[in-house]
Amino acid sequence: MTEPVTSYRIAVMGGTGPQGKGLGYRFARQGHTVVLGSRSAEKAVPVAEEVTARLAGVEGAGTVSGASNAEACAEADVVVLAVPWDGHDDLVASLPLEGKTVVSCVNPLAFDKRGAHGQVINGGEGSAAESAQALAPEATVVGAFHNVSAVLLWGEEEYLDEDVLVVGDSVDAKGVAIELARSVSGRPGIDAGKLRLARQLEPFTAVLISINRKYKTHAGIRISGVDLGGE
Amino acid sequence: MTEPVTSYRIAVMGGTGPQGKGLGYRFARQGHTVVLGSRSAEKAVPVAEEVTARLAGVEGAGTVSGASNAEACAEADVVVLAVPWDGHDDLVASLPLEGKTVVSCVNPLAFDKRGAHGQVINGGEGSAAESAQALAPEATVVGAFHNVSAVLLWGEEEYLDEDVLVVGDSVDAKGVAIELARSVSGRPGIDAGKLRLARQLEPFTAVLISINRKYKTHAGIRISGVDLGGE
Repeated sequence: MTEPVTSYRIAVMGGTGPQGKGLGYRFARQGHTVVLGSRSAEKAVPVAEEVTARLAGVEGAGTVSGASNAEACAEADVVVLAVPWDGHDDLVASLPLEGKTVVSCVNPLAFDKRGAHGQVINGGEGSAAESAQALAPEATVVGAFHNVSAVLLWGEEEYLDEDVLVVGDSVDAKGVAIELARSVSGRPGIDAGKLRLARQLEPFTAVLISINRKYKTHAGIRISGVDLGGE
Repeated sequence: MTEPVTSYRIAVMGGTGPQGKGLGYRFARQGHTVVLGSRSAEKAVPVAEEVTARLAGVEGAGTVSGASNAEACAEADVVVLAVPWDGHDDLVASLPLEGKTVVSCVNPLAFDKRGAHGQVINGGEGSAAESAQALAPEATVVGAFHNVSAVLLWGEEEYLDEDVLVVGDSVDAKGVAIELARSVSGRPGIDAGKLRLARQLEPFTAVLISINRKYKTHAGIRISGVDLGGE
């Protein structure tokens, strides 16, 4: 493990869910300070302890603590939204996000007999990330980590064989998520364009879920043809 | 080059465009018989000659000819739709597609100052592939090859470092596209679920176009974690 160039204080909303816990583990493993948020601190603390136990012996690991979502947010530089779409808007509207970099990993999916598919947001012209930006106009929202397998995040591999795609309208905020991606994939995230392209990244997770069912795997996206330098 | 297990007669609608011409070249290179279709045979024939010239010396290559779209269709087992979204519905409705396997590669994209993005089809609950199926109910439509770079299809590499994602509601028709994918990537396509997931594959091309602009490349999708066997 190499210490990251910048060490962030990261609050993970939905930090007790599989995606949030897995991302928190990966970020702390790379030296970032992580607060896992949940509805109540009582729910978050034991999960933080579980992650902390897993980091024992990892040189340079950051600390992991638990708090209520709002408390976790208050002290953070970066707020990761790893919450279900159901209830997303109310939660985001309730958080102290002013001035923060917000990374949305939210996947608005629906499931029926035919499998997973994307939910239609704002008549096809919206996404969870754009909703978050509208609800928190004084924050800077980017989308990233949508398509990363929660199972693999919590797994044994040092890095996931996946690329992290990052979308956003702020170059600086995208840069934060591109840097954080190193914790997951061992290399920078890929700048995949403007925030509205979250409309494509979020429901693509339904495609990966279909592939997972068919091939009994944990599929991920890699982008071929991109030179990220220094890999 | 190894001869394919099944050699298809493939008609490529929009066969004189970069995607259609590139796919036709790759299919013929692998031993399939290809007819490039265009609005008029006069437009298609010189492009077919160009592809044929490029195949000189390729052992086992199939023939490539040119015809009007409707004529090309009539004799084909497999009809590839590689046409622009603009005019797509009128064209599909005009073609003799009854009983055929139809592979839609159509990407309904829009472009503005902020770059490429997906067009909203049917209020977010549709896709070009689903539109084609509705217009040709006696054909079997699958979606595939949406995200494959036209530049690389016409390029020098033996195979593209990309996966071909295939969606559809018929296992048999998906099997055809999964097999045809070998011509492009050197391995089978990936079964990515039901036809409605074309809603995700089609506009994902906007993400790749954004990546191409940012990194000056021809990006493609690879799916990690899937064992396609016998690679």
